[in-house]
Amino acid sequence: MIEILPLRGLPEIRPGDDLATLLAAAMAGLPGGPRVMDILVVTQKIVSKAENLFVDLETVEPDREATALAEKTRKDPRVVALVLRESTAIVRAVPGVLITRHVSGCVMANGGIDQSNLGPGGDGHVLLLPRDPDAAADRLRAALGPDAPAVIISDSFGRPWRVGVTNVAIGAAGFPALVDHRGSHDRGGRPLAVTQVALGDLAAAAAGLVMGEGDEGVPAAVVRGLTWSGAARPAADLIRPEAEDLFR
Amino acid sequence: MIEILPLRGLPEIRPGDDLATLLAAAMAGLPGGPRVMDILVVTQKIVSKAENLFVDLETVEPDREATALAEKTRKDPRVVALVLRESTAIVRAVPGVLITRHVSGCVMANGGIDQSNLGPGGDGHVLLLPRDPDAAADRLRAALGPDAPAVIISDSFGRPWRVGVTNVAIGAAGFPALVDHRGSHDRGGRPLAVTQVALGDLAAAAAGLVMGEGDEGVPAAVVRGLTWSGAARPAADLIRPEAEDLFR
Repeated sequence: MIEILPLRGLPEIRPGDDLATLLAAAMAGLPGGPRVMDILVVTQKIVSKAENLFVDLETVEPDREATALAEKTRKDPRVVALVLRESTAIVRAVPGVLITRHVSGCVMANGGIDQSNLGPGGDGHVLLLPRDPDAAADRLRAALGPDAPAVIISDSFGRPWRVGVTNVAIGAAGFPALVDHRGSHDRGGRPLAVTQVALGDLAAAAAGLVMGEGDEGVPAAVVRGLTWSGAARPAADLIRPEAEDLFR
Repeated sequence: MIEILPLRGLPEIRPGDDLATLLAAAMAGLPGGPRVMDILVVTQKIVSKAENLFVDLETVEPDREATALAEKTRKDPRVVALVLRESTAIVRAVPGVLITRHVSGCVMANGGIDQSNLGPGGDGHVLLLPRDPDAAADRLRAALGPDAPAVIISDSFGRPWRVGVTNVAIGAAGFPALVDHRGSHDRGGRPLAVTQVALGDLAAAAAGLVMGEGDEGVPAAVVRGLTWSGAARPAADLIRPEAEDLFR
């Protein structure tokens, strides 16, 4: 059995907060306390808040490229300027839609820039994604000490052919975010067709069942009861290399 | 708290098996027995086996289109002929890759045709996807009786920009597979950016944590502890309409 345990009672996270200490206190309240092989899933939003990745839109001067792209996509030119700054490539730009490859490698809408639930002082500001979410997961895990759980930093992404967002792992530490069955065979001896499983994304989605978006949402959860073997693999391994992208 | 409970002890499913009776027996063994608002997640594979969606490849005569497409994608022409028969459009065809829109509306690789773990007598056969997975979920739920759990029929899909498969809901009954927050606001009064959540896909992914692929895998699981309100919505609502497809 696997349990998905919401971490309730976290305060509103502010720049400079010691996220590890706050999360450790919340995990101490779990049934039986923290356990070996727990996976702690935290939203990108609280990581970005603690790391003070806020940008005051008043300070952003859109250049000509950003202004043209904002016109094409009908978005705020200042936000588009930030999306371009945080991205390496534009994947799709049509009215209402701006999909780019973030510097982390993730392909997503609006460079992962967040404009809702920014908390006190959030007016007129936006919140950027960590530029290296795996490194942020590593730092959080290290700060949680020698018996730290595995860590996922999650975000909610849309999908090209499906409606509605799902939670994915943009950062991971301490477990294999991608599990490789290549070389395995089915019970009849045929090579397995499905050879790589996005374990990090499955665990992030499971945590998404208790995390939610609105007032009812909690920004962290623990996935308990999973087992794995083999070396840890970062969430970067979940990103399809640009050369294998079928839709460039 | 949400629990993901694997349903162990199901026999190998064969054509004509009464899947509802077998699943009900397995659910009776859950802690506390079945509960209201359980979601029963079953793999497409056992639904297709029970519905005898096997095709003997010896009986398939590839036409000229299938033969050409098989050459282009380096796949078995008989399998490609079946993919074309079960699809309404070709989305991408390059060496090693054949992505189509299945008659159900799902965009996926190889028309969802399954060639592994087909069980006794599976040699030389392939297993098709149900043509209307929501109707299959409705039938299964109806056969489970008046206190039936919600039902998901799940499959594992690849993603264009991410490596590894995740489980998604291709059929759903008895709960809203898509949850719509449009019109909601964040705690600061801003309209929520993320307005539709793919609840069916999140629950399927959570179940995927215990279902797996190989010998260790189980073909069904129960997601327990979720709450929802509002009318049931089918998995068809998770499919982006072709007109909104950004990558046609």
